[in-house]
Amino acid sequence: MTDTRTLISPADAKPPYFVGVDLGGSSVKTGILDDLGQTLLYHSFPTEIERGPDDAARRMAGAVAELIGKLGLRPSEVKSLGLGSPGTMDLRAGVLLDPVNLPGWQNFPLRDRLRQYCGMPVTFANDAGAAAFGEFWAGSGKQFQSLAMFTLGTGIGCGIIINGVSVDGSHSTGAECGHTLIDFHPDGRLCSCGQTGHLEAYASATALVKRTIEALESGMKTSLNARIDRGAKLTPLILAEEAEAGDTLSLELIVDTAKYLAVGIVNVMHTVDPDGVLLGGAMTFGGKNSTLGQRFLATIQEEVRRRAFPILAAETTIDYASLGSDAGYIGAAGLARAEHARLSARG
Amino acid sequence: MTDTRTLISPADAKPPYFVGVDLGGSSVKTGILDDLGQTLLYHSFPTEIERGPDDAARRMAGAVAELIGKLGLRPSEVKSLGLGSPGTMDLRAGVLLDPVNLPGWQNFPLRDRLRQYCGMPVTFANDAGAAAFGEFWAGSGKQFQSLAMFTLGTGIGCGIIINGVSVDGSHSTGAECGHTLIDFHPDGRLCSCGQTGHLEAYASATALVKRTIEALESGMKTSLNARIDRGAKLTPLILAEEAEAGDTLSLELIVDTAKYLAVGIVNVMHTVDPDGVLLGGAMTFGGKNSTLGQRFLATIQEEVRRRAFPILAAETTIDYASLGSDAGYIGAAGLARAEHARLSARG
Repeated sequence: MTDTRTLISPADAKPPYFVGVDLGGSSVKTGILDDLGQTLLYHSFPTEIERGPDDAARRMAGAVAELIGKLGLRPSEVKSLGLGSPGTMDLRAGVLLDPVNLPGWQNFPLRDRLRQYCGMPVTFANDAGAAAFGEFWAGSGKQFQSLAMFTLGTGIGCGIIINGVSVDGSHSTGAECGHTLIDFHPDGRLCSCGQTGHLEAYASATALVKRTIEALESGMKTSLNARIDRGAKLTPLILAEEAEAGDTLSLELIVDTAKYLAVGIVNVMHTVDPDGVLLGGAMTFGGKNSTLGQRFLATIQEEVRRRAFPILAAETTIDYASLGSDAGYIGAAGLARAEHARLSARG
Repeated sequence: MTDTRTLISPADAKPPYFVGVDLGGSSVKTGILDDLGQTLLYHSFPTEIERGPDDAARRMAGAVAELIGKLGLRPSEVKSLGLGSPGTMDLRAGVLLDPVNLPGWQNFPLRDRLRQYCGMPVTFANDAGAAAFGEFWAGSGKQFQSLAMFTLGTGIGCGIIINGVSVDGSHSTGAECGHTLIDFHPDGRLCSCGQTGHLEAYASATALVKRTIEALESGMKTSLNARIDRGAKLTPLILAEEAEAGDTLSLELIVDTAKYLAVGIVNVMHTVDPDGVLLGGAMTFGGKNSTLGQRFLATIQEEVRRRAFPILAAETTIDYASLGSDAGYIGAAGLARAEHARLSARG
């Protein structure tokens, strides 16, 4: 499935332009953005992992060339391309190492191959870091100098921006806050990564479902049983529906998720002390537009206030991200723009 | 008690020069350093808190002028002064807010007052951040681009340097890793700050003594009892002596401290992914020159390897800091030098 959208016209845009590419396991999102972070033209297409990384790089370059052509931009007006990708990766070398979500794409020099095929400088980034930079540049984090962003889904991704620079880390594993310990005890919950006690093992969608199954097995009374009897598969969405319909257990399990998340958020606050912490991803229970989403955020904020240093409890913003699944390609373009500015300043 | 030392002569030094001041609850350490982080002349004097912050600022300026005079340096050769101070503080405003270790010094504009009295630009820093920068510039962290440094003592201080920049935080509380949670449960140990489950509540000297008292109360067999009967006060040093003399309990309590610390270290590694993590402060059990100090470090390294991402377990250096109690004034001078370079680059 492909999707193409025109957002603002070149007449309303501020040159120069930057390309953002967000590579995921199921789709590739591409966009042409102006200097203010506005998207002129957006196009997504299936990743088709089985065709391999070289083929994907060619298709990315083709899609980008088509977007630039459609907009009638001169090549010199499009300065560079940013690529956000799932890990593991070596950011400095521009190489995919062993990306769990891209089976068969091991040890591929994606950055340089893409540079070769699209003929412009390529900035290589972690997908969670790109999403954080997207919110920083053009989303809920626009007013911040520094932020941490948590992407809540099957796992917990994180990106940290300090004074406008993404914390990539010395070994391309900066901002892996989903894998910080919130319980050092040997009986801490088992994480997808094989370690115990990690934030992700308590607060991801996977963890929420696991805690729900445990509650059901312990025989707790809940309307979830009727849903399962009617064939529903346990997901955060089903829990959200039952919580909204008044099921106490479902609500408790979601509230517990918020409290666990708050612990991870306090830890990042006490480590890098950002202006704000943003929450995005699939597991945000409808976000600001839903009563449950508001309750989820309020519970996180309350627990953070209870646990953080008083000055941080009073002054650090905890909010939802605003760009949804567009954050990744927008942030990738933003990182390309920041790198372009750094290199230009050097002369 | 004052202490004055001449370290290298101006003939062997590389200009320009920078002043480092490390303000503590009991003493003020001052030094004149060259562009390579070498100390030309060092002088320390008692803080005498009761004389108040304005008097202290005057005495600091006086001591600095005397050092510069003794060295025969021209004022234009000494570019700026860095001041490391205990918090709480507002780094951007240059103001002490409510420093626990400097009673009566609340809400004092220390940076600007010192600038006024010593007539040169002043860079204001957190003491733990200054110590981390000292190791980064001139100590065990010289080869790193980024590092985290833990200062182990009554509490646990931390400084983080990323790509040469200290993580001060948006509210002057960056790198408060002693107050990150390693146990979210309500029965987590009580920290000096009033919260529960913090690293400091498990791994500081205070926590070690507390855990020792609990072990003694539970009736465990140990040679510590004999020491206490002979009038010894429980301290990490007493535990170290008994551990070295073969007392199993004392050694276990120290090893447990190392394991708790490793959890906090893994958390900072999974959050900012530095090149290295350094350990300094009073509670390092003799450091590299002692068998117990080597055992302490080895236990931390082993536990970090067990808990960290494989690539970080393999590649992140965990080591002792090398500058001892000089790290603070050296780092303060280094931060002044870095700020001077930034301002000069701007023109």
